[in-house]
Amino acid sequence: MKKTIGILGGMGPLATADLYHKIVVMTKASCDNDHIRVYIDSNAQIPDRTTAILKGGKDPVEEMESALRHLEACGADCIIMPCNTAHYFLPRLQPLTKIPFISILKETAKSCASRFPGKKAGILGTTGTLNTGIYENALKEEGVESVLPNEAQREILMDAIYRVKAGEVLTDAAPLRALLDEMKANGADYFILGCTELPIVAEQLHLPDDFIDPTTELAHAAITFCGYEVNE
Amino acid sequence: MKKTIGILGGMGPLATADLYHKIVVMTKASCDNDHIRVYIDSNAQIPDRTTAILKGGKDPVEEMESALRHLEACGADCIIMPCNTAHYFLPRLQPLTKIPFISILKETAKSCASRFPGKKAGILGTTGTLNTGIYENALKEEGVESVLPNEAQREILMDAIYRVKAGEVLTDAAPLRALLDEMKANGADYFILGCTELPIVAEQLHLPDDFIDPTTELAHAAITFCGYEVNE
Repeated sequence: MKKTIGILGGMGPLATADLYHKIVVMTKASCDNDHIRVYIDSNAQIPDRTTAILKGGKDPVEEMESALRHLEACGADCIIMPCNTAHYFLPRLQPLTKIPFISILKETAKSCASRFPGKKAGILGTTGTLNTGIYENALKEEGVESVLPNEAQREILMDAIYRVKAGEVLTDAAPLRALLDEMKANGADYFILGCTELPIVAEQLHLPDDFIDPTTELAHAAITFCGYEVNE
Repeated sequence: MKKTIGILGGMGPLATADLYHKIVVMTKASCDNDHIRVYIDSNAQIPDRTTAILKGGKDPVEEMESALRHLEACGADCIIMPCNTAHYFLPRLQPLTKIPFISILKETAKSCASRFPGKKAGILGTTGTLNTGIYENALKEEGVESVLPNEAQREILMDAIYRVKAGEVLTDAAPLRALLDEMKANGADYFILGCTELPIVAEQLHLPDDFIDPTTELAHAAITFCGYEVNE
């Protein structure tokens, strides 16, 4: 019996759509019935994760648990969250359910170690993700060194991320281009698009750098977990 | 209290991803929390609708009901199905639940009547959709006349639809181009992309004709039903 995926989504909705789309196109299938059964609760009511972590905003765990209960009711065999920052709350979420979460941080770190051995990862993400060190720590566990953006660079990233969340299509690549070049000068060999809006940013701005897209890594891990094959 | 959407999906998975993506980008929102809560059961196990209707294949209602129960458990306020052919089974599905379905056929027919008054709609779709007359009848109820593809043209449509379902990216526009021109010669003023894979076909082949995209009409109706505004 093949397994099913539960997506604890809505953080944000466009990133959730991106993850779901990636699961569909990455699954080796020749007709509808070859695909994985996927349950999604795109709970747009989940309070902003970065605000909760850095500014004492409303705790998101209650709304995340509401979605978790729905995915349990559907019978999901694993839970994935298309939001890197949300993984800060994973140590509180996993004890609430017997269904295993597949961590976007862990899968990304494993992929960094195997795809870019001995190289340094530049971590891009929200200030919530960066200031808590969740990616740095996940990378360390896989023996991967990292380079972090400075304060000014973090503001440029937050601006791009929240503009995409607001539905904007970005056209000016210059601020991101400068940021990536500065981080390269500081030793970054490639970059982790460590916020689920950033693969959308990279696509909109046609950035040509070496990127690891955590959404793709998460889709890959979930498809494999369910016993399906990934398209080459 | 604003309402939520339940998507009875998986027919096919890519069309389900397309509908969900359209709901997200069409909803007027300036941050994650402005979006609609959406529940999806992308049940890839639902048997092929056209095969069930035309060739006595396995009845899909049982698997559709399984998804319906999940969406009920989540608390969806309306149900939408990103599969035109599946609406053949709507008279059997609606009595199974108190949650109202929003019909892709009805919403499309209303949009045809208001956007192209007095004009004839060319209906494109699966042979399941075309042979049962479900679109023709929905259009008649709104006073819209229609032009149907002939047998050979239906085969061209089925071929394109099932290639997209199999994950192929279409590049040869010639067969579809000839089909549309022949239907225009038979009186069609514009076309209904009456299978949820066809908006994907039209986009892949950059077809420049006047189209009504039922997926867009369905997204529009569901957003409005939930009390949200649609982006201009």
